[in-house]
Amino acid sequence: MRNLTPNTITNAFAEYARNAPSARTRDLLVGLAGHLHSFVRDNKVTQAEWNAAIDALTRATKFTDDKRNEYILFSDLLGVSSLVDMVNAATDGTSSSVLGPFHIEGAPVLENGGDLWKGQVGEPLVVSGKIVDEKGQPAKGTVLALWQNSGNGLYAQQDPEQSPTNYHARLTVANDGTFAFSTVRPLSYTVPDDGPAGDMLRALGRHAWRPAHLHVIIQAPGHKPLITEFFPEDDKYLDQDAVFGVRAGLVLPFKRATDRKELPANLAARDTLPMPVWTARLDLKLPTA
Amino acid sequence: MRNLTPNTITNAFAEYARNAPSARTRDLLVGLAGHLHSFVRDNKVTQAEWNAAIDALTRATKFTDDKRNEYILFSDLLGVSSLVDMVNAATDGTSSSVLGPFHIEGAPVLENGGDLWKGQVGEPLVVSGKIVDEKGQPAKGTVLALWQNSGNGLYAQQDPEQSPTNYHARLTVANDGTFAFSTVRPLSYTVPDDGPAGDMLRALGRHAWRPAHLHVIIQAPGHKPLITEFFPEDDKYLDQDAVFGVRAGLVLPFKRATDRKELPANLAARDTLPMPVWTARLDLKLPTA
Repeated sequence: MRNLTPNTITNAFAEYARNAPSARTRDLLVGLAGHLHSFVRDNKVTQAEWNAAIDALTRATKFTDDKRNEYILFSDLLGVSSLVDMVNAATDGTSSSVLGPFHIEGAPVLENGGDLWKGQVGEPLVVSGKIVDEKGQPAKGTVLALWQNSGNGLYAQQDPEQSPTNYHARLTVANDGTFAFSTVRPLSYTVPDDGPAGDMLRALGRHAWRPAHLHVIIQAPGHKPLITEFFPEDDKYLDQDAVFGVRAGLVLPFKRATDRKELPANLAARDTLPMPVWTARLDLKLPTA
Repeated sequence: MRNLTPNTITNAFAEYARNAPSARTRDLLVGLAGHLHSFVRDNKVTQAEWNAAIDALTRATKFTDDKRNEYILFSDLLGVSSLVDMVNAATDGTSSSVLGPFHIEGAPVLENGGDLWKGQVGEPLVVSGKIVDEKGQPAKGTVLALWQNSGNGLYAQQDPEQSPTNYHARLTVANDGTFAFSTVRPLSYTVPDDGPAGDMLRALGRHAWRPAHLHVIIQAPGHKPLITEFFPEDDKYLDQDAVFGVRAGLVLPFKRATDRKELPANLAARDTLPMPVWTARLDLKLPTA
């Protein structure tokens, strides 16, 4: 190690870690160091350029607190969060996607057929569908957790005008796997771009928009859970998602129903929603464990 | 981009950055994202493992302030800072090495032959040598900036008991390129390991020690500057430097002089240093610009 060169440093790093308590941790850290070394060598990164990278991480301290984490945002915008999801995804069932920063534990229970919109700002949307397990059968006790932004484009956590659990809910599906609820049509929105991660977007010539989406987590006792999100097919940001969350099979047609008879029979707001109303069909299949 | 897979995400990232204002910035960020993607794919990094990486960066916010930067420390301990130095190093002249966190601008002037030790704790050391330019000639106006830790193992910035510029100095060498000064023998010491970068060291089965060293920057008008550091050849951490700073040609014999006549004639403390005294010879050659 006293005669280090650019071509020996990765081996020196690996050799120096030979006593790591965990072989997996060693492999990961040696792999990470090796890729960073290749990045520096391949691009002949200058001192000023590396200083700029360190400076971005240092400035991110000022944009990180209990409600916001600029390091997660960097990971999201670099596509790493999305890739971690993909490499761990099941090979069958509905595609998974990123969890995002707005999921909360303990969201309020919503009756099957219930209403989240309650006349709030935005265009109401009726979602209905069926959830089956990896064998194509309804799974007893399947719970659909869902969350999304409001009709003003903000999640409850971003908006002091909303109740802290607005558009967050947990719904137990029927024994035949079906469910329905009414909500607001989610809106495309921008991730926070006033910090160093936003500077990175601008340096890439990119914007901060995500296409509109509805987050869901499906959990059924004895089955592998599914974390994913769904996008309306008419969203203009589908091919420009700032965080690389869009997947084949997660883009849905949003249609207009003009007749209440088209709406699910158990919908609590079936007789009161203003018509025409947006509808989306959400059929999900759990992955094999 | 709406049909992303683990194998298409890097291309999608590159395509999405096609409008980057600077081609160099685009290449760097696409290269960095691509290496991070390869790291995740190659190692099938789990969500929990990636969360641990994000958590380390997030906890680093608590260990970063005006006096300490945990992100630089991560870069140092991963060997990246050292490699950035190496890939930008000249191919001739004395080897360069890392700047480290303790350099200060505007250090006090030290006369050629002057004394930094002044009877402080530790073993005194006499350093003398000659600095030549890339053609082997003394360069007019060559300034040697030097800094090191005290005989208690701490840099002035780490130790409220020391003056803020203790063992920091700038010395103009003689017209023939020669110089001499007396100082304290630097000590091996540990980088700060109470934060997440220290946790990484422990996960690697490594310690936080750096071998003892004397930092220098050589500047001469019209010549490329040289940033480097020198290590005593009897230091036990030469092959285990936590920050990968040791290079061929930067390891020096530290000898004992028993006779004052062996010491440089212009040494201010020549008649007062306790004998025997440590000596080191420092001959430097500036790189070609």
